[in-house]
Amino acid sequence: MNIGIVGLGLIGGCLGLDLKAFGHRVYGVARRSHTCDQALAMQAVDVASTQLSDLRSCDLVFVCTPIATVVPIVEQLAQMLPAQTVITDVGSVKGALVDAATQHWPMFVGGHPMSGKSEAGIEAAQRNLFQGNAYVITPIDSQGSQTNGKAIALLENLISQLGSVLYHCTPSEHDRAVAWISHLPVMVSANLISAAINEPNETVQKLAQSLASSGFRDTSRVGGGNSELGLMMAKYNRDEVLRSLTRYQQEITATIEHLETENWSAITQTLDKTHQARPHFLNPA
Amino acid sequence: MNIGIVGLGLIGGCLGLDLKAFGHRVYGVARRSHTCDQALAMQAVDVASTQLSDLRSCDLVFVCTPIATVVPIVEQLAQMLPAQTVITDVGSVKGALVDAATQHWPMFVGGHPMSGKSEAGIEAAQRNLFQGNAYVITPIDSQGSQTNGKAIALLENLISQLGSVLYHCTPSEHDRAVAWISHLPVMVSANLISAAINEPNETVQKLAQSLASSGFRDTSRVGGGNSELGLMMAKYNRDEVLRSLTRYQQEITATIEHLETENWSAITQTLDKTHQARPHFLNPA
Repeated sequence: MNIGIVGLGLIGGCLGLDLKAFGHRVYGVARRSHTCDQALAMQAVDVASTQLSDLRSCDLVFVCTPIATVVPIVEQLAQMLPAQTVITDVGSVKGALVDAATQHWPMFVGGHPMSGKSEAGIEAAQRNLFQGNAYVITPIDSQGSQTNGKAIALLENLISQLGSVLYHCTPSEHDRAVAWISHLPVMVSANLISAAINEPNETVQKLAQSLASSGFRDTSRVGGGNSELGLMMAKYNRDEVLRSLTRYQQEITATIEHLETENWSAITQTLDKTHQARPHFLNPA
Repeated sequence: MNIGIVGLGLIGGCLGLDLKAFGHRVYGVARRSHTCDQALAMQAVDVASTQLSDLRSCDLVFVCTPIATVVPIVEQLAQMLPAQTVITDVGSVKGALVDAATQHWPMFVGGHPMSGKSEAGIEAAQRNLFQGNAYVITPIDSQGSQTNGKAIALLENLISQLGSVLYHCTPSEHDRAVAWISHLPVMVSANLISAAINEPNETVQKLAQSLASSGFRDTSRVGGGNSELGLMMAKYNRDEVLRSLTRYQQEITATIEHLETENWSAITQTLDKTHQARPHFLNPA
């Protein structure tokens, strides 16, 4: 199959490495020619270009650019691709993209591979990043807009080649679920750092920094990450992030009340409940 | 030196293994004789007993029992140890213990080795747990109660043998600092799980559990841990946990306001600030 990849960053690069290894011919498009050279040198693509029009011969195109640019790129591709070409994206929000993209391109399927690593850029790309991890697709079936069945089948076939575990849901179910497990944790974690650095006593501030170990390290990790990515989650999944954060605020308020009233049995109940619940979120995909 | 260890759990066991290796004679006391047998079999102690009175020949005694029992055990030891014996503890709060313990025993020094692992119990004990990690001691110098200088020197000598990095501070500085980096993260993290499991839509709840990966795993880790330990932190460091959690709640409220008003520059500012601040908390001890 001829496969296009727009945006040769970590995810685009990893898709290219795997798909080439499975025998597909991979066409990469990046904004900068330097990135094209890197992708060619790493053998993540067969052909690299800075022009979307070079994807004309592709059967399926992955759009792997930042969330804000997905719909505009689909709109541009719609001017140049043959009608049967499937377009999909890899963005971490779906509601804000899938309807709009499907209106520009009937063969669009929203997707979200739940894989990543802390390094960014094509230089961090590797084989088998998606293996064993969840890959969500979000076909729609609303008035006037319905995801094409053949497009779904073609994408599913590639996802199975990548070794991912396939999940189907609606864009809104996806966005609500990832708000809980991915976007809310970023806000929870960032505000932990934010609060800690507000400690006005300098001795305590220095001591806290020196004594911080694995507990603080783990809880603060996603809140100390890439701020652009955090902003995109907040912006494009605003309603669900707001909903989950408001629910979270109620839990924090309740804990404060329990501490104020020394309601130790309520604190114990919460901690017992969370201890029991956490393993349900650690199932292998 | 003859060294006593009361409470043969993870920390007591690790202390025993290291101190024996440095040539000290280690006397262990546990509540259950089964634990004594285990400690002897693992060579974590030279002598094991269920009787505190068997520590009479010790130069220094580590009390490694849960926070709630530290002062009562010091009180009991005070009835049977020679006056020059040093007593120290390893509890993760200090304000609630150090004054009281010092009043029972003038040769008491509060201590807190900032080391641990996820497994509990003597069966998880290992060599060199303390190596390279912070070890805080909290001598006091208040009216009527002052930590003995010789007692401090003796404990410092052992801490240096363990390879730990020594910090001195007051009990209240300690409790405020660990509230930020250890106790607040537990509350922040537990409430994340607590909020997520309240999602009423069953499809979304199941999907969230299936899609959760490293971000949720890390952010929820300390909140899904041992509930008894979390309760002890809340109970014995209540004022500082309450203070830090109230400050944290203000940050969450501000983030909610920024989301509601789509104040993206404020969200960016927070995420940039936390991205820059986090490395200060990751210094090697």
